Amino acid sequence: MTSLHDRKRVCLVGSGNWACAIARIIGVNTAAHSTVFEPVINMWVFEELINGRKLTQIINEEHENVKYLPGYKLPSNIVAVADLKEAAAQADVLIFCLPHQFLGKLLPDIKQVINENAFAVSLIKGIDFNDKGIVLVSDIIREGVGIDCSVLMGANVANEVAAGDFCESTLGTNNLHHGDILQQLFHDPTFHVNIALDPHGVELCGALKNVVALGAGFCDGLGYGGNTKAAIIRLGLIEMKKFCYRFFDGIKEDTFFESCGVADLITTCFGGRNRKCAELFVKDKGVSWETLEATVLNGQKLQGTLTAKEVFHIIQNTNAVQEFPLFTAIYRIAFLGADPRTISQL
Amino acid sequence: MTSLHDRKRVCLVGSGNWACAIARIIGVNTAAHSTVFEPVINMWVFEELINGRKLTQIINEEHENVKYLPGYKLPSNIVAVADLKEAAAQADVLIFCLPHQFLGKLLPDIKQVINENAFAVSLIKGIDFNDKGIVLVSDIIREGVGIDCSVLMGANVANEVAAGDFCESTLGTNNLHHGDILQQLFHDPTFHVNIALDPHGVELCGALKNVVALGAGFCDGLGYGGNTKAAIIRLGLIEMKKFCYRFFDGIKEDTFFESCGVADLITTCFGGRNRKCAELFVKDKGVSWETLEATVLNGQKLQGTLTAKEVFHIIQNTNAVQEFPLFTAIYRIAFLGADPRTISQL
Repeated sequence: MTSLHDRKRVCLVGSGNWACAIARIIGVNTAAHSTVFEPVINMWVFEELINGRKLTQIINEEHENVKYLPGYKLPSNIVAVADLKEAAAQADVLIFCLPHQFLGKLLPDIKQVINENAFAVSLIKGIDFNDKGIVLVSDIIREGVGIDCSVLMGANVANEVAAGDFCESTLGTNNLHHGDILQQLFHDPTFHVNIALDPHGVELCGALKNVVALGAGFCDGLGYGGNTKAAIIRLGLIEMKKFCYRFFDGIKEDTFFESCGVADLITTCFGGRNRKCAELFVKDKGVSWETLEATVLNGQKLQGTLTAKEVFHIIQNTNAVQEFPLFTAIYRIAFLGADPRTISQL
Repeated sequence: MTSLHDRKRVCLVGSGNWACAIARIIGVNTAAHSTVFEPVINMWVFEELINGRKLTQIINEEHENVKYLPGYKLPSNIVAVADLKEAAAQADVLIFCLPHQFLGKLLPDIKQVINENAFAVSLIKGIDFNDKGIVLVSDIIREGVGIDCSVLMGANVANEVAAGDFCESTLGTNNLHHGDILQQLFHDPTFHVNIALDPHGVELCGALKNVVALGAGFCDGLGYGGNTKAAIIRLGLIEMKKFCYRFFDGIKEDTFFESCGVADLITTCFGGRNRKCAELFVKDKGVSWETLEATVLNGQKLQGTLTAKEVFHIIQNTNAVQEFPLFTAIYRIAFLGADPRTISQL
């Protein structure tokens, strides 16, 4: 028999657009699987004032994050909490869904208050870098909290998930027991979760696809047709695979057939901000990435350009430029003034 | 030393849009590799009159197929020949590029006149069916002429290839020696040819992608967003793989990462006539496929619907419906009046 004490307490660390979209799913699931989960989910909210009212108060009274996911109600068992230690107290499952720059400051507090045997899942797309090269966000969590960390990645535009449009997502994990619990937490009839026993591959796909999206955007900016764009996307997928195999252990080929691989790559290369800015970069000759970030993205940073630069440095430092002609061409066009048409002269 | 007698004589069987686009490449390549190939290529043309003038005469005098690829010159070493036996006489390499319905009538004549050790390559996308199930077009050629047959498939919209836009193509073969010669014949700086030692997989991709394109078109007709469409394309790729593995031997997973796989699938699901007609099928409720073929395609037949029907019969006859939920849903929507929204209720 499962006692109430065995029920997993879930804490959602983050309350932005994607966090709130996923809250709509997990709130329903913890209530539905109440032998597995404590139904109430604490959602840590970076407190701010909206027209003089606290965001936590708005969320808890109106069950809507009016700033980051307006128009979609949150289940009433999602409880906004401004104090991180209070939100994460005795948590068994931590869901990280916020810009990774926040992690360094938050993780020590979280570590102090969670339950023994707690584990995490990161919904954070993107990678970090230090002077040694790539740092996976999940590794920052693993080391910062000292717990296992899975990842959830896929073709999951937040507003479409919030609207209940059918999609798929990939849960990358090394721990089948955690994977099973997390699948129960996230899977629903319109949000299909597949497990891939390859957390690094799943996470890297989520970052590297943004580099390929720059290439797809350059194609669009040049007015190239479907043949060329499809070739660039395919070559990008091949270089994503090759990069993962070369620099990480335990990568599985099947991962690239999952939602985090080919599906997310497709959405990102046909929609998405990286593709869009890259298209404008070619059309508005001489415009800088900083100007595009300021004008198109309201000051938000492009993941693709940052990742393209760091990926190229790793490729260059390991004398692998010849093996990554597309990533190299994208870097040279984006940062060295190379002719955008070199995207298809590989 | 290579004597003139060792030079391969190439015959292009077909002169439509795709045949003429590829003629622009192979004409340059046979002239450039004149130790390997006899530069002159006979192109068999189904004779017809254009404003009172023979099409063969127009092609040979103006070096342009004004009916099927207007606006693009053919190299002068491409010689149009109306008599099939004359065109194929002493050929060493046969390129088949025409609707497969013609093959039955042509192959016996070809068999009589070609050189010993001749081999073929099929550029024909699509599959045929008899009462036993799927019949590969390359098998019709293999059996009809009694020679080895490779295939060339990929994200290759003919007019974009004719324009010299960069793209890739996959040469599926079981014979590396033939593959090497064919790669020299087709590869050029803007038309990259990769060899895959999996001719069946390459050929099946070219047919099955049209079924997935119907699913993508249903999504577009329903106004679904990027998440859902990417999920349908991904599930389609997975069922393409599963179908190949289940019903054919020697299929290789890498094939699905080649241009014939993921790249052609992407182009077909974002452009292409199957996608377009499927979108209209949903939007114009009650319209028949025959009407769409008549109005949208000028009477040409849709490959996707024919293939969807035959593929479903094979799935059904082998009790495999459960394993192919997407192909099954597409068939039911297309032919049994199922609600198009079932495309995402898998």
